Amino acid sequence: MTKFLTEYDASELDELRSELQREFELIAGNKMHLNLTRGKPAADQLELSHGMDDVLAGNYTASDGTDTRNYGELRGLLEARELGAELLGVPAANVIAGGNSSLFLMHLVVETALQQGLWGDQRRWSNDSNPKVLTPVPGYDRHFALTETLGIGMLNVDIGPTGPDVDEAISLARDDPSIKGIWCVPKYSNPTGCTYDDATVQALAKLPAQAAADDFVILWDNAYAVHAFGDEDEQLASIYEAVEQAGTSEHVVQFASTSKITFAGSGIAFIAAAEVVLHNLEHRLSFMLIGPDKVNQLRHSRFLKGRVQEHMQAHAKLLRPKFELVQQVLRTELDGLGIATWTEPVGGYFVSLDLLPGLASEVVEMAQQIGLTLTPAGATFPYAKDPQNRNVRIAPTFAAFDELRTAMQILTLCVKLASVNHLQDT
Amino acid sequence: MTKFLTEYDASELDELRSELQREFELIAGNKMHLNLTRGKPAADQLELSHGMDDVLAGNYTASDGTDTRNYGELRGLLEARELGAELLGVPAANVIAGGNSSLFLMHLVVETALQQGLWGDQRRWSNDSNPKVLTPVPGYDRHFALTETLGIGMLNVDIGPTGPDVDEAISLARDDPSIKGIWCVPKYSNPTGCTYDDATVQALAKLPAQAAADDFVILWDNAYAVHAFGDEDEQLASIYEAVEQAGTSEHVVQFASTSKITFAGSGIAFIAAAEVVLHNLEHRLSFMLIGPDKVNQLRHSRFLKGRVQEHMQAHAKLLRPKFELVQQVLRTELDGLGIATWTEPVGGYFVSLDLLPGLASEVVEMAQQIGLTLTPAGATFPYAKDPQNRNVRIAPTFAAFDELRTAMQILTLCVKLASVNHLQDT
Repeated sequence: MTKFLTEYDASELDELRSELQREFELIAGNKMHLNLTRGKPAADQLELSHGMDDVLAGNYTASDGTDTRNYGELRGLLEARELGAELLGVPAANVIAGGNSSLFLMHLVVETALQQGLWGDQRRWSNDSNPKVLTPVPGYDRHFALTETLGIGMLNVDIGPTGPDVDEAISLARDDPSIKGIWCVPKYSNPTGCTYDDATVQALAKLPAQAAADDFVILWDNAYAVHAFGDEDEQLASIYEAVEQAGTSEHVVQFASTSKITFAGSGIAFIAAAEVVLHNLEHRLSFMLIGPDKVNQLRHSRFLKGRVQEHMQAHAKLLRPKFELVQQVLRTELDGLGIATWTEPVGGYFVSLDLLPGLASEVVEMAQQIGLTLTPAGATFPYAKDPQNRNVRIAPTFAAFDELRTAMQILTLCVKLASVNHLQDT
Repeated sequence: MTKFLTEYDASELDELRSELQREFELIAGNKMHLNLTRGKPAADQLELSHGMDDVLAGNYTASDGTDTRNYGELRGLLEARELGAELLGVPAANVIAGGNSSLFLMHLVVETALQQGLWGDQRRWSNDSNPKVLTPVPGYDRHFALTETLGIGMLNVDIGPTGPDVDEAISLARDDPSIKGIWCVPKYSNPTGCTYDDATVQALAKLPAQAAADDFVILWDNAYAVHAFGDEDEQLASIYEAVEQAGTSEHVVQFASTSKITFAGSGIAFIAAAEVVLHNLEHRLSFMLIGPDKVNQLRHSRFLKGRVQEHMQAHAKLLRPKFELVQQVLRTELDGLGIATWTEPVGGYFVSLDLLPGLASEVVEMAQQIGLTLTPAGATFPYAKDPQNRNVRIAPTFAAFDELRTAMQILTLCVKLASVNHLQDT
């Protein structure tokens, strides 16, 4: 029976350390090159969308008669906006369908909020000398990088199994008018995999009305809206309905994309927001684009129409064994040792692993020594600073099954070895 | 035999005016809806690229083994960069291949030059309280709108048959460090259709070394690089070689796209620049994109490989009769009257028509009254202000042949009527 490593006496720790060290050196001799950093679909998942290549069959005319080959339609093709509406649970009139990058749309929204404002009035974040947003952590590194590069500060809020700590978010935003927004990945969150519960969604919807800032924006990145791989899809309450009820509908901007539905690099991305916000975003877009790639929008609309769920079940079938393997190795190797906790998501692309405080960077470095590249310690926090230096993000989707097994063995070995070292030193 | 309208006596003018006025009212009765504003390809041109739909045939692997369906490759697929290199006459190593909009890439470059600088040092246009660029006029309205929205001023320089007045450009830039760049459409320029001659290209290449600003940038929008429709393609000297010789290679950024080669809304766009500039642009892009749509890049590369010229000749065959028709009507209706001059391009998408000073807005309004929409007067100048109110841009490509003939008849009628009115009043 396992017992907590903290309960081991000195000689037990010594023995375990020698054993782990031998194993470590054995693996080092194999000179492997494994990688658990890549939050991207594997080739077998991409194969699921091969029907897209011939779905047009030379017919480039949209259902409303638009010639998708030519310029125009800055808000995107109607049927693409309908697809976005389906993913985000809003009317198509509230959707802009764009190009292959939801990150570009997020950059557009945040930069517009900062420089020109989202509402066509005098409100803009740059009126404040030091605007900030709330960042639930651990979170998505590209949100943080985007925010930082635009010169916007970040204040961490803890995220738990039901979403971010809303009480903390309210208490911060209520007192500080320089707090302008909050980043959310509300479903199968990156990296914890949690889905916000109903109470969290309702409470977040009221936040813009409670905040001291009158230009507070909920940045709702629903990247994994239909990305369940478990038996059951977790249900996310509608932020669209919640903000309608709370009277804050002009203060949420939703994002989605097909990057992890069809082709990661060649999908289409969406914004959903109130009309006034869409109007101001469209105006800003008009200086950068004549229109989005409507041919690719048509391709996606035709390919996915009426079969998003079926298509995502095919993804699930490929992803589930990988996530099960991750859980199995974590349980077998680390359960009951008191040195790690981890999430058990039923959707999304990641598993979040928390170590004893202070050990994340050491484990990442150790793994690198014997051929396993992990996401850099701290990457899931703003400025790459994990205040407790304990979080490791596991991205199991891209690796082949056997590689994933070996990678997880190496990871858990390093976790144990680093923990023993740590306990011996203290 | 025609004589100048200025030589008509009062009764001759009266008689002509009545005649033109009758014709005007006749046309007004037809309640037509014609449009000469649209600088976009007609459907028959788009048909030329239908082969793109099945060129992949389910094979998404690039020649270097890249899986184009997945994330990554921020600078674009190698073979797409090679296509851009062919269009712009530079090594592929100097090219970034992007998404469907060269305008987005221009916005990226100008905004980066302004906010963060193109060279990774302290130089950025925003160090100057009032940065400006030189704008050869008449020019492309979207260049002007982009520049204005970023808060950058514009100073006009006249453009003639051999390109912009470089002496004027030098004399302005030499004395004023707030002058940071110049917009150029060097081949089949929008809207005059002129191609810069060798001396102009050489002189422009030296401009960054002569300018007072040390962060001067030539914005070289080679939108019509391969877009001849006449018997012979005009030859544009290589700006790449010219800046290499002048030692100013870090001070030119070239742009091109396939928007008017394949599908206007679904093409791919390119930047060519020195490595240090590409490096800084790539860094900025990394906050907005994981990578471009490489599937569409592969589609274009395969479709156009080794046959750009042949493909553009097919376009030429469709475009030439439309441009010939424009010239024919202009000659028949306006030649020898002394009330208009116009360009006779052998490539590009536009014809530029100059009227008696003061008459452009009146002609545009008059034409609108009887069912012909023209590009708004002033659109070819910064801030939509044509100082002489005389330039009208003709975009003949999108209209059907018969519509184009009628549209040109209406346009020339309005030009004559407005001119007679004007001469009677003066």
